[in-house]
Amino acid sequence: MDQLTGNCLIGQSGGPTAVINASLCGAIQQSINSPLIKTVYGAVNGIEGVLNEHIIDLSAYFKSMDELELLKNTPAAFLGSCRYKLPAVEPRNEIYEKIFEMFKKYDIRYFFYIGGNDSMDTVMKLSDYAKSISYPINIIGIPKTIDNDLQITDHTPGYGSAAKFIATTVLEITKDSEVYDVDSVTIIEIMGRNAGWLTAASALARNDSSDSPDLIYLPEVPFSIENFMNDIKEVQKRKRNVIVCVSEGIKDGSGKYICETISSGLVDVFGHKYLGGTGKVLEDEVRSRLKCKVRSIELNVLQRCAAHIASLTDINEAYEIGKQAVIAAENGATGKMMVFKRLPGEDYNISIESVDIKNIANKEKVIPREWINEKGNNISRELINYMKPLILGEPKLTMKDGLPVYLKLDRKEEQN
Amino acid sequence: MDQLTGNCLIGQSGGPTAVINASLCGAIQQSINSPLIKTVYGAVNGIEGVLNEHIIDLSAYFKSMDELELLKNTPAAFLGSCRYKLPAVEPRNEIYEKIFEMFKKYDIRYFFYIGGNDSMDTVMKLSDYAKSISYPINIIGIPKTIDNDLQITDHTPGYGSAAKFIATTVLEITKDSEVYDVDSVTIIEIMGRNAGWLTAASALARNDSSDSPDLIYLPEVPFSIENFMNDIKEVQKRKRNVIVCVSEGIKDGSGKYICETISSGLVDVFGHKYLGGTGKVLEDEVRSRLKCKVRSIELNVLQRCAAHIASLTDINEAYEIGKQAVIAAENGATGKMMVFKRLPGEDYNISIESVDIKNIANKEKVIPREWINEKGNNISRELINYMKPLILGEPKLTMKDGLPVYLKLDRKEEQN
Repeated sequence: MDQLTGNCLIGQSGGPTAVINASLCGAIQQSINSPLIKTVYGAVNGIEGVLNEHIIDLSAYFKSMDELELLKNTPAAFLGSCRYKLPAVEPRNEIYEKIFEMFKKYDIRYFFYIGGNDSMDTVMKLSDYAKSISYPINIIGIPKTIDNDLQITDHTPGYGSAAKFIATTVLEITKDSEVYDVDSVTIIEIMGRNAGWLTAASALARNDSSDSPDLIYLPEVPFSIENFMNDIKEVQKRKRNVIVCVSEGIKDGSGKYICETISSGLVDVFGHKYLGGTGKVLEDEVRSRLKCKVRSIELNVLQRCAAHIASLTDINEAYEIGKQAVIAAENGATGKMMVFKRLPGEDYNISIESVDIKNIANKEKVIPREWINEKGNNISRELINYMKPLILGEPKLTMKDGLPVYLKLDRKEEQN
Repeated sequence: MDQLTGNCLIGQSGGPTAVINASLCGAIQQSINSPLIKTVYGAVNGIEGVLNEHIIDLSAYFKSMDELELLKNTPAAFLGSCRYKLPAVEPRNEIYEKIFEMFKKYDIRYFFYIGGNDSMDTVMKLSDYAKSISYPINIIGIPKTIDNDLQITDHTPGYGSAAKFIATTVLEITKDSEVYDVDSVTIIEIMGRNAGWLTAASALARNDSSDSPDLIYLPEVPFSIENFMNDIKEVQKRKRNVIVCVSEGIKDGSGKYICETISSGLVDVFGHKYLGGTGKVLEDEVRSRLKCKVRSIELNVLQRCAAHIASLTDINEAYEIGKQAVIAAENGATGKMMVFKRLPGEDYNISIESVDIKNIANKEKVIPREWINEKGNNISRELINYMKPLILGEPKLTMKDGLPVYLKLDRKEEQN
């Protein structure tokens, strides 16, 4: 296959992470250096920006390498994001026609989409459509999700930084919970509807002098409120301050979310049951059943945007996978997503490869059952060893007035 | 007055901060170096540790300076804390007799208590009681509170680090909120029942490219839900993503907490009204009245324990005020609290002095009304200038396996 020459377009999609812009940065730098790519365009708000012709010239925008360096450490999608699901691929569909009209207008021969499994659906459909109309373009997905739930890849860019934030925070909350000489239960609610990777990262807070969190509950194992109460009582036999980490998405044996099955008895003005968050629901149960001091803490969006405590390993890998996506596309790959492959050996090493997007789009990877203990209230040593290298290293942030400097898309300078 | 020779005792009390141990570290180091002080003792869980004779020998515990350095950067009270209110000072009260029996037993001639305004009540009462029984001891309060609500002192150790965490986090949440091309309101609930200092710190997140947070509501000004809705609509005229920072303690004109006055109509099984947190209550109101995407985020205990993003200025000042407390006591001061005084001039400089504890104990300092705008939805430039120097600088943390190393009191090594 002949190598394509023309312009490239990069978009970002789905929920933010602390390192999604490191991948953008890698893709931009590699594209600028590519002999095959002339202009590097960015789609504002992902595929929506293509449909609305909200496209900016990134080659012109980034005049200095310093700015690109700031981009690398800036959390949340710099180009803006979207949650847009393309319709099924069919001939003469007006949405696809509109997108490819834009591709033609801007002479786009390379399209890179940074996102999670929903966004990989877009990569799959666009590459299928391109093939169906014989439009020469190489389309590559660059993975991004704090959830770490993409198939095939060893892990996803964004996960390591979220894991580092979670572990650091759980460590600090543990310190906070230990200061008073009273029995207490602290419940930390962590993101993850179906996969427990983020909640599992709380185990990294354990160290030589602390075995907290004491209990970890993941969506992969059915949750029983009775077992939960017994587990807490068991821990209370040996320590005063119990730290529980729980995925927002824990479910009962029938697959119903716990926050839906356990109702505090609250009803709204219409008599509808009120659904609290998972942590809050468990907090109320512990308070009424165990009569001890209890608090629930929801880590919330900080899990995906706390770039000030990002993992340097994660940033560097996200940057590199962005670069490698461009190299793969230059070499003719299309309809692929880039993945990390962990190399065998004692030390942590990865390679970056591309795999068929059909094996990834719309699929989810959860934690293997054997990496969770039998009782379903803790994780295995293997899982800890898997996560450990991903949170290593701290970025050197540019600080101003005591705060990190993050880059913001200057819409006045946008170029059409 | 003759200089006292004997042993010293240090305790910590009240809610944790990121730098309360920096003050402990300063007090320990200065005491170890003091020719007047022989053994440096620590009271575990504050005054409760004195009553229970839970007292450890800190001179023996800290064998190396490296350990003390770790202590300086460890959040939450290393010695444990308490919330214990002493009874009124009266002759032959058995609690005071017990405490002074311990003071005699351990030959305590210097007592340092690190805490907030409730803890200063303890300092006041103990020094009054000592005088009443003519027991020679110098008792000094070392201020500590994230709330910044102590009288006389320019600011309190702990506030700068909490302010830095809040400003950084608000900055990152703002980035997160801007990625989608839809109208949204994000409500960030920040600690502070009566004083708005912490919530005001959110304004430090503003920079050249962002004016968020757009609205700031403090407990110092009566809150009106109607004005709040109008304020949001006003901001929405010029931007899509509105960031609101609000103190947990905002109240209506009659002084009732908003989270109590506005009920979402939820009732429990007994028909009692359900009280949500302030942020959650406002979230529900915005959703039902403005019909746009809305989210509330409670920063929770991270505000007081996120040592990984502590202010170096705050750490250094907390350390220094701990040292200065010992020096003041050596020179005969008692019944005092140490304070920061901001020196005049363009550059930020402080001196450390001691003031009569009676001017501080049980009193609260709120934000002057003139530092809040007339509408009560923003703060003044003066307040920003006041806060700005307090968040400067980042500590060099010792990291292990990607996480900060924090010191933990090893109870096996405790010495009685």
